[in-house]
Amino acid sequence: MQGMMQDWPMRVSRIIDHAARYHANRPIISRSVEGPITRSTWGEVHARALRLAAALGRLGVRRGDMIGCMAWNTTRHLEVWYGVPGAGGVLHSLNPRLSADQLIYIINHAEDQWVLIDHDIVGALEPIADQLTTVKGYIVMTDRAHMPETSLPNVLCYEDLVDAETGGDWVDGPEDDACGICFTSGTTGNPKGVVYSHRSNVIHSMVMLQRDMLGLSSCDTVMPVVPLFHANGWSTGFGMAMAGSACVMPGRMMDPASIFEMLDMGVTVSAAVPTVWLPLLNHLRANALALPHLDRVVIGGSACPRAVIEAFQNDYGVKVLHAWGMTEMSPLGTICTPKPEVLALPAEGQLDTQEKVGHSPFSVELQIRDDDDNVLPWDGVSQGRLVVRGPGVVKRYLKQPEDCVDEDQFFDTGDAATMDPNGYVRITDRFKDVIKSGGEWISSIDMENAAVAHPEVFEAAAVGVPHPKWDERPVLLVVAQPGMSPEPESIIDRLRPLFAKWQLPDDVIFVDEIPHTATGKISKLGIRQMLDAQSYVLPEFR
Amino acid sequence: MQGMMQDWPMRVSRIIDHAARYHANRPIISRSVEGPITRSTWGEVHARALRLAAALGRLGVRRGDMIGCMAWNTTRHLEVWYGVPGAGGVLHSLNPRLSADQLIYIINHAEDQWVLIDHDIVGALEPIADQLTTVKGYIVMTDRAHMPETSLPNVLCYEDLVDAETGGDWVDGPEDDACGICFTSGTTGNPKGVVYSHRSNVIHSMVMLQRDMLGLSSCDTVMPVVPLFHANGWSTGFGMAMAGSACVMPGRMMDPASIFEMLDMGVTVSAAVPTVWLPLLNHLRANALALPHLDRVVIGGSACPRAVIEAFQNDYGVKVLHAWGMTEMSPLGTICTPKPEVLALPAEGQLDTQEKVGHSPFSVELQIRDDDDNVLPWDGVSQGRLVVRGPGVVKRYLKQPEDCVDEDQFFDTGDAATMDPNGYVRITDRFKDVIKSGGEWISSIDMENAAVAHPEVFEAAAVGVPHPKWDERPVLLVVAQPGMSPEPESIIDRLRPLFAKWQLPDDVIFVDEIPHTATGKISKLGIRQMLDAQSYVLPEFR
Repeated sequence: MQGMMQDWPMRVSRIIDHAARYHANRPIISRSVEGPITRSTWGEVHARALRLAAALGRLGVRRGDMIGCMAWNTTRHLEVWYGVPGAGGVLHSLNPRLSADQLIYIINHAEDQWVLIDHDIVGALEPIADQLTTVKGYIVMTDRAHMPETSLPNVLCYEDLVDAETGGDWVDGPEDDACGICFTSGTTGNPKGVVYSHRSNVIHSMVMLQRDMLGLSSCDTVMPVVPLFHANGWSTGFGMAMAGSACVMPGRMMDPASIFEMLDMGVTVSAAVPTVWLPLLNHLRANALALPHLDRVVIGGSACPRAVIEAFQNDYGVKVLHAWGMTEMSPLGTICTPKPEVLALPAEGQLDTQEKVGHSPFSVELQIRDDDDNVLPWDGVSQGRLVVRGPGVVKRYLKQPEDCVDEDQFFDTGDAATMDPNGYVRITDRFKDVIKSGGEWISSIDMENAAVAHPEVFEAAAVGVPHPKWDERPVLLVVAQPGMSPEPESIIDRLRPLFAKWQLPDDVIFVDEIPHTATGKISKLGIRQMLDAQSYVLPEFR
Repeated sequence: MQGMMQDWPMRVSRIIDHAARYHANRPIISRSVEGPITRSTWGEVHARALRLAAALGRLGVRRGDMIGCMAWNTTRHLEVWYGVPGAGGVLHSLNPRLSADQLIYIINHAEDQWVLIDHDIVGALEPIADQLTTVKGYIVMTDRAHMPETSLPNVLCYEDLVDAETGGDWVDGPEDDACGICFTSGTTGNPKGVVYSHRSNVIHSMVMLQRDMLGLSSCDTVMPVVPLFHANGWSTGFGMAMAGSACVMPGRMMDPASIFEMLDMGVTVSAAVPTVWLPLLNHLRANALALPHLDRVVIGGSACPRAVIEAFQNDYGVKVLHAWGMTEMSPLGTICTPKPEVLALPAEGQLDTQEKVGHSPFSVELQIRDDDDNVLPWDGVSQGRLVVRGPGVVKRYLKQPEDCVDEDQFFDTGDAATMDPNGYVRITDRFKDVIKSGGEWISSIDMENAAVAHPEVFEAAAVGVPHPKWDERPVLLVVAQPGMSPEPESIIDRLRPLFAKWQLPDDVIFVDEIPHTATGKISKLGIRQMLDAQSYVLPEFR
């Protein structure tokens, strides 16, 4: 027997419909890429997203078409966030900091039909446009006056397109339709595409709005510092509209003075990686500034230092919500809000818990498992592979022949973790050895593969070395071919075509041997122990 | 193109799995029907619900089987709440205050296979058991020591059943499976069955947990005074577990001293109809009691008087969340939490807003329409029929040949309302003229039909007359057959077999003519104007 309630597909278009209906005049303030601070509302974002959707339809966009978007966090990006899925398209968020080769790969792999792009970064695509085989044209997200001189083919002006339309209806369809795609850089060769559905985005946003998670309210003013192109924007793009929160979009300026200027506009909730918050705290101290509006900050992407948690809470009265997730999880898996068991602890014990990444909402199922797939107890000690299941978790990567889940449908996160009896997760290590720098990921395997392509290199291993500002910086360990002595610069030159400048290693270390595991794989753990034993420091700190 | 995220059916079993996994030791305190206060946890409720599900399976319960439950708010009722759907059954909540005829009708109409029942109310079913044609037996929700002497056939003891099992797995299936059923007393003849799906219950609970709605947290202790058998329990049965809240179940004792005793156990959130709160406030005043734990109360079911809102907020520091919904809506449609526009008002303006029933979360779409189905503006003045759409809204009643939604899938609530520019709803009247007494509904049409069955009655109309304690009490207007003078008691006698004692009218008023609308229907508005013009008062106040 079936239930007899209404068919109401969970489409993200209904989120912006809700915001426009119930929170039409809530302010949306943005630092535009052109420079000035702009003001909009959910009602205007809704109206303009409908017009964008109409324009995309006129350009031939149909249900299921991939549409790229390379843009900073602005109001226009929010319009695109809803306008593309509202046109039936699948929004492919592009990180402008990816290397040319990575961009070529993911745009071609996703088969993007059109690319929306901010006017200041057309240079990221101009050199590779002739290799983007599926792209029919580019929509530059500015007005006629700011259109750049560009060699990109078939360029259209965003504001011209929107101005030419009066609106219409969203393209409708089942909730399982693809809605967006983000690529993840794993440790294996090419980036992998995670294809979110309308359903997964809606469910993920609904659970993340709960009080013990992000707890967004119509009385909040939210500033996502985390780029919308990072891991589904940490769900902020959907959550703010679903809650009817006011919104501050910081644009591309990530320096602490610019961030503070935007926070000071009344932001009550913000979200960013630790490398954003550390300089901000220094800036606040140096200039004797306060954060009178800010209630809580969500910190994720990499582990948040205890000193940052203490500084926010003790010096500025701002609650810290440590969080963990991944692109494959829509992306949030846990948020560190206090359960009663934690509130009952003394202050130091509460801080100990805040160093963990928190607990999961309904719909995120976690297990830790040993190497034989036995489920381990939540005793705060047993360490295992963290596996996850739920409606917001990937089942299969784009164009892969097989599912990436086990027979119980659990996905292996690649992280090692302990869980305490209250269900709080501590990430203890990563089985994946991706290098995280400035909130961005660098694939160690890609770097190793590029290095060993050098004729004088026998073996290479890339690892992240802790860095106070960037979290980690890559260094490359190299075993030379017998009798050879390659120049470090010649090895770096081999990497240049494949990596963005900031992704290149800070150091090339020549060694006689690289540690290996029993099964013959490079042991990143062994390498870190070796560097520690040598008291290794990065060149800039010598 | 489809999304590539996991298949994860939204089943309510997963809600209790979540509570047991992440909030296993959260206390659940209950006043048992046997008398003593009992203590349990979500972990125990989960374990015992699994054992109940196994027992039901052993009794032959299969996916889609209807299982009745007539019980007060206790821990055992929570076990049943999850055990029945977890066995694949469809939980049919039975109101012990229904008349014998109503119970016969709805149990037979739903085709209940088994009925779970509290041991103190077996008398409600004993006289009609031989007319319940589909019921195979009765499970009395107590232990062996408290099993009542009863004439019910095939009686089993709940604790014996649970004790005999060790657990197992939930019956799984698609999220569109029927999960529960509640009957609604409309103005047309027989009660109508609303069949909730697992999906509709999960979605409804997820949105209602948002901060601007119920905002439940693991740090809350929730007491649902509203019976679980009323309109899907206002979603508390699911919401508490999904949020991992602690829980206090008040049992059957609804007198203010008993309610206060349970509130004083640390309850932070409670929910009930106004007729519960009014005597409680009197009790607090008379005994100089305080509510140090209580943070907020949800008040719905009928309009909440301004004096109640003021007393809670000004005298006891308890926030009032006025709410509106209906059985057909899972049931919540709006909750009155303050948006920024309301917080910006002076205190009196905020109170004015709190007299409205609030605004809707994502997934509840409202419109007001005039008689020609034109959508009316949200100007706070235009009054129209309130229609609603969403995944938690009924599409078709049980065993009805046609959907109860219009071509746009909107369901007509039968209420008249205005909406202000901020989306706050004011219920101004009801097109349905059901009589609400003590939080229960009495069908005016049923009463009229019964009365006109009297040979000396020409026409009859039942209306609710305002009553300070019961909200409304029914009175019956009668036009006698020409030349006849029926005795009032003889008309009441006609009603007795069809109505519970408290549902019988307080007065029978003989009139020469009953006002009618242009289309020949009885005009309840006309009747109320007529009674007002006569300064009518109920017999008990004369």
